[in-house]
Amino acid sequence: MKKIVISTGGGDAPGLNAVIFAVVHACYKRGWEVYGSRDGYGGFLDLDDMVRLTPKDVAEIYSQGGTILGSTNKGNPFSLPVENLAGEIQVVDISDKIMRNFSRMGFHCHIAIGGDGSLEIAHRFAEKGMQVIGVPKTIDNDLEETERTFGFDTAVSTATEALDKLHSTAKSHNRVMVVEVMGRDSGWIALYSGISGGADVILIPEIPFDMDEVCAKINDNELHGKHYSIVVVAEGAVTQDGAAFNKGTGELGRQEVVLGGVGEYVASEIRKRTDKDTRSLVLGHLQRGGSPTTFDRLLALRFGAAAVRMVEEGIFDHMVALVNSKMVPVPITSAIRNRKKVSLDSDKMQTAEDIGICFGHSSGSWRFS
Amino acid sequence: MKKIVISTGGGDAPGLNAVIFAVVHACYKRGWEVYGSRDGYGGFLDLDDMVRLTPKDVAEIYSQGGTILGSTNKGNPFSLPVENLAGEIQVVDISDKIMRNFSRMGFHCHIAIGGDGSLEIAHRFAEKGMQVIGVPKTIDNDLEETERTFGFDTAVSTATEALDKLHSTAKSHNRVMVVEVMGRDSGWIALYSGISGGADVILIPEIPFDMDEVCAKINDNELHGKHYSIVVVAEGAVTQDGAAFNKGTGELGRQEVVLGGVGEYVASEIRKRTDKDTRSLVLGHLQRGGSPTTFDRLLALRFGAAAVRMVEEGIFDHMVALVNSKMVPVPITSAIRNRKKVSLDSDKMQTAEDIGICFGHSSGSWRFS
Amino acid sequence: MKKIVISTGGGDAPGLNAVIFAVVHACYKRGWEVYGSRDGYGGFLDLDDMVRLTPKDVAEIYSQGGTILGSTNKGNPFSLPVENLAGEIQVVDISDKIMRNFSRMGFHCHIAIGGDGSLEIAHRFAEKGMQVIGVPKTIDNDLEETERTFGFDTAVSTATEALDKLHSTAKSHNRVMVVEVMGRDSGWIALYSGISGGADVILIPEIPFDMDEVCAKINDNELHGKHYSIVVVAEGAVTQDGAAFNKGTGELGRQEVVLGGVGEYVASEIRKRTDKDTRSLVLGHLQRGGSPTTFDRLLALRFGAAAVRMVEEGIFDHMVALVNSKMVPVPITSAIRNRKKVSLDSDKMQTAEDIGICFGHSSGSWRFS
Amino acid sequence: MKKIVISTGGGDAPGLNAVIFAVVHACYKRGWEVYGSRDGYGGFLDLDDMVRLTPKDVAEIYSQGGTILGSTNKGNPFSLPVENLAGEIQVVDISDKIMRNFSRMGFHCHIAIGGDGSLEIAHRFAEKGMQVIGVPKTIDNDLEETERTFGFDTAVSTATEALDKLHSTAKSHNRVMVVEVMGRDSGWIALYSGISGGADVILIPEIPFDMDEVCAKINDNELHGKHYSIVVVAEGAVTQDGAAFNKGTGELGRQEVVLGGVGEYVASEIRKRTDKDTRSLVLGHLQRGGSPTTFDRLLALRFGAAAVRMVEEGIFDHMVALVNSKMVPVPITSAIRNRKKVSLDSDKMQTAEDIGICFGHSSGSWRFS
Repeated sequence: MKKIVISTGGGDAPGLNAVIFAVVHACYKRGWEVYGSRDGYGGFLDLDDMVRLTPKDVAEIYSQGGTILGSTNKGNPFSLPVENLAGEIQVVDISDKIMRNFSRMGFHCHIAIGGDGSLEIAHRFAEKGMQVIGVPKTIDNDLEETERTFGFDTAVSTATEALDKLHSTAKSHNRVMVVEVMGRDSGWIALYSGISGGADVILIPEIPFDMDEVCAKINDNELHGKHYSIVVVAEGAVTQDGAAFNKGTGELGRQEVVLGGVGEYVASEIRKRTDKDTRSLVLGHLQRGGSPTTFDRLLALRFGAAAVRMVEEGIFDHMVALVNSKMVPVPITSAIRNRKKVSLDSDKMQTAEDIGICFGHSSGSWRFS
Repeated sequence: MKKIVISTGGGDAPGLNAVIFAVVHACYKRGWEVYGSRDGYGGFLDLDDMVRLTPKDVAEIYSQGGTILGSTNKGNPFSLPVENLAGEIQVVDISDKIMRNFSRMGFHCHIAIGGDGSLEIAHRFAEKGMQVIGVPKTIDNDLEETERTFGFDTAVSTATEALDKLHSTAKSHNRVMVVEVMGRDSGWIALYSGISGGADVILIPEIPFDMDEVCAKINDNELHGKHYSIVVVAEGAVTQDGAAFNKGTGELGRQEVVLGGVGEYVASEIRKRTDKDTRSLVLGHLQRGGSPTTFDRLLALRFGAAAVRMVEEGIFDHMVALVNSKMVPVPITSAIRNRKKVSLDSDKMQTAEDIGICFGHSSGSWRFS
Repeated sequence: MKKIVISTGGGDAPGLNAVIFAVVHACYKRGWEVYGSRDGYGGFLDLDDMVRLTPKDVAEIYSQGGTILGSTNKGNPFSLPVENLAGEIQVVDISDKIMRNFSRMGFHCHIAIGGDGSLEIAHRFAEKGMQVIGVPKTIDNDLEETERTFGFDTAVSTATEALDKLHSTAKSHNRVMVVEVMGRDSGWIALYSGISGGADVILIPEIPFDMDEVCAKINDNELHGKHYSIVVVAEGAVTQDGAAFNKGTGELGRQEVVLGGVGEYVASEIRKRTDKDTRSLVLGHLQRGGSPTTFDRLLALRFGAAAVRMVEEGIFDHMVALVNSKMVPVPITSAIRNRKKVSLDSDKMQTAEDIGICFGHSSGSWRFS
Repeated sequence: MKKIVISTGGGDAPGLNAVIFAVVHACYKRGWEVYGSRDGYGGFLDLDDMVRLTPKDVAEIYSQGGTILGSTNKGNPFSLPVENLAGEIQVVDISDKIMRNFSRMGFHCHIAIGGDGSLEIAHRFAEKGMQVIGVPKTIDNDLEETERTFGFDTAVSTATEALDKLHSTAKSHNRVMVVEVMGRDSGWIALYSGISGGADVILIPEIPFDMDEVCAKINDNELHGKHYSIVVVAEGAVTQDGAAFNKGTGELGRQEVVLGGVGEYVASEIRKRTDKDTRSLVLGHLQRGGSPTTFDRLLALRFGAAAVRMVEEGIFDHMVALVNSKMVPVPITSAIRNRKKVSLDSDKMQTAEDIGICFGHSSGSWRFS
């Protein structure tokens, strides 16, 4: 009988509980025991945070958002900031302690569900001898080596639903609605929700934008009798001219951008340049919450079950990945090397262009930039 | 055969189209003609904006958000700012022109759907001799004389759904989530969505709040092992100590509040005082959009049908209202006199208190303030 | 310190858990203890089924369907069928045993949430000396003395959502869609969902219908260029001509109705008489499940909190009711006397008529029947 | 300037309108004209049914269920049953007439959206010289050569949502709920929704089932303290023992199965054999309706845009397909040859087994059948 420990780390993603559900059931079927470590590596440091998980304990969680194991960031165990009695912050390495407790408790393997940060830590434990399997988690869908991550479809659905709601009010009032969605390094959520939600303009980190192009599209809509526009902006989108507004160069920029984000910046520029009644909205954490979509439930359950099969096959220091619609193991190291960007010559981008979406690029088409 | 004209004015509210649907059908049944005036009184000024509406034209709109008649604010026809050739803004009264055109087109009655601003204008036209019937519209549910207005249930549902989504992520990450909802003068949306969405704290304009009380509740949650809290704030909520932060008196106040709204202010204070990971979100226009709930559809259809029955009975300069669960006419003038506030001794407030919700009032209970 | 026991009985209704949530919190605030009796009176018979309920035990259940206390029908304690060793069924009265255990455990009061059956049993216990408070539960909204019951808005929303879905496919394929909804004795769900969901025909128990009228409406739609129709049928709807098809008197009736329900009967008649492609659907238990709507959550929480206030005020053998939008106590006996029927001269019925809905009555209008 | 004609045929699938939307926009961008033929080939027979489609005509339809072109089955143009004056039905071939009109109107290409029936007809027109491009449509996801078809994700989501709703009521009342979903030849919808919706048993056409196994699973649940079960049955599921109950061979079979479907059969058997309170529900047309999910919108838009690119590249008599996550052309003939069955050695099936789902196969595992 094997003993498996499972943990969840990093930001929230709908589907975390479904992974846990599948791991617990797949282990139960094999006669193995599963333990959950609370708040990342918390259970390795305090036995009260190491909980036995049986099918009964995870009943019905496959449809719930969040994670029953918690995911409060305690920091990197290899360089953890702790406060000493004098109130000073010191950075300590508690990885040996974790390794010791892992062995003492007789665990066979650790299934670590997390983003690239958590996966890197998992890999470092693998180097120290821990049998580790990674399950990728990023709502942004920007992890290399896996076609999809769970949580992404739910985030996109939430964003699209918001666009649907804003549509009717934008139309009734001849307004421009600017919606800022998640995506610091990549534009996946913006692209998918923008296409599905009828956006006129989509601004993503992969294609630096030009406000003139954005406003040209809005004015063109007017000309064609469409007196409202929907603009979707990824939080990591940047202007084309190198004026890195994130640093806040101008008087206006400072306030608007530093405090309000790129969505509010875009809205205020549209307001100034087109004279249209323009409103902005930041979806924020709404995108991380709620019951996972059917798509994400199935995907997360597959990830969890595949992780247990990898334990069975003895494939460690690897991450479960979706490749050609199949669950396969890939080395953790190769998975976390790079962020997956939106591919500019995909048929999704072509579709977006074909249905008239503007990406704010000044040379007419982003493809010839 | 009567000719009826209908218009929608002011901010968006889910159910506007359902009112139009009911008016068109109820008139059709009586053999009357219905015309829609675009963008408020637009159709009275430009015949292109006066459209004939038959059952076919309104097919299926009962379930759609927005308004097919548009609702772009052109201003008050009794004092309309217009630009002359020299580029100067002049205020003109175009009400006589509208009266003339109303007569010329042979309209029997004008059914005006709108908030207190639009209803007041409708009343002034009634004083000039126009046969007018008002249909109240406010998403805030703050109109005196009617127990409910359509759009409110949809707004509350959207806000509650958002609270549900934030719940799981707040819990997984031990966070405080602050959600700012609509309600400049009254706390109806905050109160209803807060109770239904499991809020720990609800801040409404009717009960000026004290940040110490808010933080005491959050700390009390910690003590009871609940490491996350949900705070719902109406956009018009104010602090108790008279420091009207809306005016921006302090260094912090200025930036945070003027730019970020009361929700962001509350979040930043909680962050400072409790050291909890605290996030804020402004729901904004999401609350005005989307398909109306079943409740709002039925209510809006009843308002529309009742307005037509009032035409039949010759009751003008009145507004349709929901009183004791029945549709009754009330004089427009009495309806727009005051805003309906949350009644502090209602059983809803008692329920909120009974299930442990904090209203941020320092004397322990808001009832003894 | 008082000890309160709470139970849920009868069919499922979204909001049951919200009532429990409110009772537990309102008692906790008063320093009282709450116990839950599983499966109706199960906890009075077996201590294992009597569970202590604290705020922690009911965390987040306000948004969940079903009931954490279970509601498996064990039968009426005053005449309970039990099997003896010889395998014979005997009817026994176990009410004295329940009374004894109620006293022994030191309970102050029993809050019984249930439909008319459960409320009548509660009243009989009140006659035996148990301090009882009833909370009405019926998804059909057909309980006299209370304007609304929780669960009804959710059931109507589920039915309306189904109508919305069927709309597009009915329209694309020029079909008649017949949807059978709950309502054995009254047409509330059919009426509300039918109006909100764009039905052409609504058949309710209160207005016996004539298939000729139903088909006339469908044909009239054709004439007006609307090549599809939506028909909503309450499960208890009956034909006008006295041919009580429920009893299965005719050749056709037997098979179709006994096996397929009134919805399938109506569909098959339409198919035969109009030659239209006609499909039928029975919504069934979908209407009893799922997370309660915002409206139902608030209503159920108010019911629960009001019940606890009634304990405080010592008002027993009464049921909480919604009267004039307020929570008030009414004697249980008067509440269960009659079923609340759809009032045929309400403005809801007028609205339905005004927007062109047919009720299948042959004299042109049901009002002159 | 090219003139393109587009048509939709067969049963409804959410996403049809999104395909039309993309085709119209992608053609508009290229300066081409688009016409829509109503009700399949209706526009080729009656000019009134051939409508010009511009971006304005398709505004916002990407989010709507159904098809604006209608899809009423008029039959196969190569062998169309028509009634002559004497009232006799004759089968005629009107394909030449359609070819003539196609040429006369100067169409460059016909984009036919449809299932295998419609695609086969399209291919026969291709053989007669019509430049045809197919877009696959089947809610069942059972078309060879394409990994996915639009509408499937929406159908699965609707089914999963229903399972979620039934869950709470099944649990509260210790019931078995049997849900019959679409899938005459393949179990895709049953498999996906069953896994995502927490089913205990999934019965699909690919794995003939044994009622003993089904009941064994339900009893096993009891033993483990789970007093309710969810059973998902594809409408085409059959029993293992060769007793093809569809033909109604036995005493029980006839009534229950012929009239009630396999779901009702399974429910009645469970009721008899386990004595559990068991209810059944047929989801039926709910699965074909409603707004497409985000996933389906994006997929359908990609199909539409890819079809237009195929026109540009002159690839005819081919169908757009999703292969390795990319849009590629495949010959229509190869696409319609076989139905795509659920692959029994996929990781989805393994996942289902790993989380304890029973497929009703008697040898313990369907894999060794």
